[in-house]
Amino acid sequence: MLLVTPGPTELHERVLAAMSKQVISHRGPELQELYTSLVEKFRKLLKTDGSVFVLACSATGGIECAVSNIINRGDKVLTPVFGVFSERFAEAAKFYGAEVTYVNIKPQSAPSPEIIKKVLEEKTYDVALLVYNETSTGTRSKDFKEIVRVCKERDVLVAVDAVSAAGGLPLEVDTWDIDVCVIGSQKCYAGPPGLSILTVSEDAWHKIRSARRPFYFDLIKYMRFYEEHRETPFTPAVNLMYGMDEALNIVLEYGADRWVKRHMDFADIIYEVLEKSNINLFAEKEYRSPTVISISLPNGVTDSEVLEELRVRHGVVAAGGMGSMKGSLIRVANMGNLSVKKTVKVYDAIFDVMFFKVGGIDRQAVGVLEERLRKMGYQ
Amino acid sequence: MLLVTPGPTELHERVLAAMSKQVISHRGPELQELYTSLVEKFRKLLKTDGSVFVLACSATGGIECAVSNIINRGDKVLTPVFGVFSERFAEAAKFYGAEVTYVNIKPQSAPSPEIIKKVLEEKTYDVALLVYNETSTGTRSKDFKEIVRVCKERDVLVAVDAVSAAGGLPLEVDTWDIDVCVIGSQKCYAGPPGLSILTVSEDAWHKIRSARRPFYFDLIKYMRFYEEHRETPFTPAVNLMYGMDEALNIVLEYGADRWVKRHMDFADIIYEVLEKSNINLFAEKEYRSPTVISISLPNGVTDSEVLEELRVRHGVVAAGGMGSMKGSLIRVANMGNLSVKKTVKVYDAIFDVMFFKVGGIDRQAVGVLEERLRKMGYQ
Repeated sequence: MLLVTPGPTELHERVLAAMSKQVISHRGPELQELYTSLVEKFRKLLKTDGSVFVLACSATGGIECAVSNIINRGDKVLTPVFGVFSERFAEAAKFYGAEVTYVNIKPQSAPSPEIIKKVLEEKTYDVALLVYNETSTGTRSKDFKEIVRVCKERDVLVAVDAVSAAGGLPLEVDTWDIDVCVIGSQKCYAGPPGLSILTVSEDAWHKIRSARRPFYFDLIKYMRFYEEHRETPFTPAVNLMYGMDEALNIVLEYGADRWVKRHMDFADIIYEVLEKSNINLFAEKEYRSPTVISISLPNGVTDSEVLEELRVRHGVVAAGGMGSMKGSLIRVANMGNLSVKKTVKVYDAIFDVMFFKVGGIDRQAVGVLEERLRKMGYQ
Repeated sequence: MLLVTPGPTELHERVLAAMSKQVISHRGPELQELYTSLVEKFRKLLKTDGSVFVLACSATGGIECAVSNIINRGDKVLTPVFGVFSERFAEAAKFYGAEVTYVNIKPQSAPSPEIIKKVLEEKTYDVALLVYNETSTGTRSKDFKEIVRVCKERDVLVAVDAVSAAGGLPLEVDTWDIDVCVIGSQKCYAGPPGLSILTVSEDAWHKIRSARRPFYFDLIKYMRFYEEHRETPFTPAVNLMYGMDEALNIVLEYGADRWVKRHMDFADIIYEVLEKSNINLFAEKEYRSPTVISISLPNGVTDSEVLEELRVRHGVVAAGGMGSMKGSLIRVANMGNLSVKKTVKVYDAIFDVMFFKVGGIDRQAVGVLEERLRKMGYQ
């Protein structure tokens, strides 16, 4: 099977092997070394000298951790909503007592600095919850760095869901001035699912100290255990940490920036080919995500039948729509251990199924995919 | 290294191998099959026909899940406190707005039906939070089944921390009438760390539906996804589930009841040998845990020096005291894949270190350990 769901992504055999190492005490030097190694590698990749924590939970847990630690009851929170995961961000904030302003953005697009600036001029906010890349629709915010800047210049604390962005889109936590950045293990860095990683800035710490924090996600506890012992307060998922550490070794051997560029180059070519073929892309051109490619289906064709054909006839496992887009689109990951061979196989399959199911498609257009990728030096 | 911390426990090579299988989509038939398999096996082991959920978090997350789902602000909650983990239970309840009555029990002992009955006669309670076996001190509740019964006959909802009990002590969720039972993956069932498992009774569901549930731990969401698709609402830790499933295969091949009996038999012999040697046991005889064996250290000898000797000279990794017992005791797990060979090695090492560090110990007493275990038919 070729797994191209937008997380989890297929794991490298080195990562799989790393996970089968024997468990160690979570209160001893081996764990301290492993945890420190992970923290240092994530600092390098996310470009931060600030705090980094690795939590034993999926990214939704990381999102809840971020929100519950930085939000006090009654805080005014700005959330641009353009898909399932930005809505989740807003919902979590509401649960922790925030007064949330939803900025509704049509799902084919994404936030831009102009929109956010306009909203910020109308009212003051304590916190902005920003999704960089919407996994549910395959759109990404436009000029995200500038979006963060316009928030921060108004003293709005910025928490970012970079779950499907980190590793596949440019991201510089410190120079962009992001206060809390949440990522998942199983997306563009191609680690095993089950970990969430958070960065925390100095500005965020001031807020965190005053918040009424929950139990499992109490960042002050994580900070204390890290400072005192380089440990986690609660039993960590040791084998997932082994796997994640090896996944990050692979990324760093390739080069952190090159890893991101590969994602963007692959996406450029894929989009070019899809456009030429008349396949209907869901996202508007300037908002298209390089990590999640979403293809619209015409009325009368459901995602489940397309996905079933892909799976049964071609061994390709992609994903369908979510939320209000349920049924009407398929989502294909361009994440993690990308290769020309796999990408060609996946799109050959997609073209085949779309040709018979949807029609009106130039089936030959996919033929140039391999050549175009190889010409850019990819294997 | 021989790992005998009271969780994580050493993993069987079959479990290690299982974790290195390739990741699958968390929205497809393979995951549904894996999840169903885990749920069915846990139902068998925990003896319940009720709901079972597997969460991607450590047991502390499972505890917070239990507490936040069944407790409403203002609920009257009874918590016998006799160590770090029973205190954690009470703290979590307070965070979610409960009015908590702490029943302080000295840490060398544990709750008994008599104590709980007396407390229940003084006041009415909505919920009782009961730790079956205190991992932090190595004591276990006396006649736990009866403790649950006296709560339930007064219509008190019962949530149980069975993290270090399940698999090593008798436990029958349905016939004992436990409403929510929380366990961790990495204790007596010898799965990888990073999962928490919860059972939920019908009585508990009534309460859960009215509670204001948090986000990542919302059991109604878990229930809905399980009922509709045999899936989890958030990305599961797939590789840990592979490992856990194989760990449970090993338990079930050996026999669920036999697995528990092995823990109790090993503990009986270990305690007998320790007593004969004049090693100072922390727990009072009738409260001694079969899964966590805690040894008191005399004034002037700290746990860290004993643990260091065990680690460096013998390759044995045990644990120290926690909370108010920090420094003054060592804790040795009798959990998971028990073998005569490993147990003999561990106690040979402990006797050696205790003989030189503490003195006054009959060092020869350990000599009978192997013979006694073999005579009972163990290998």
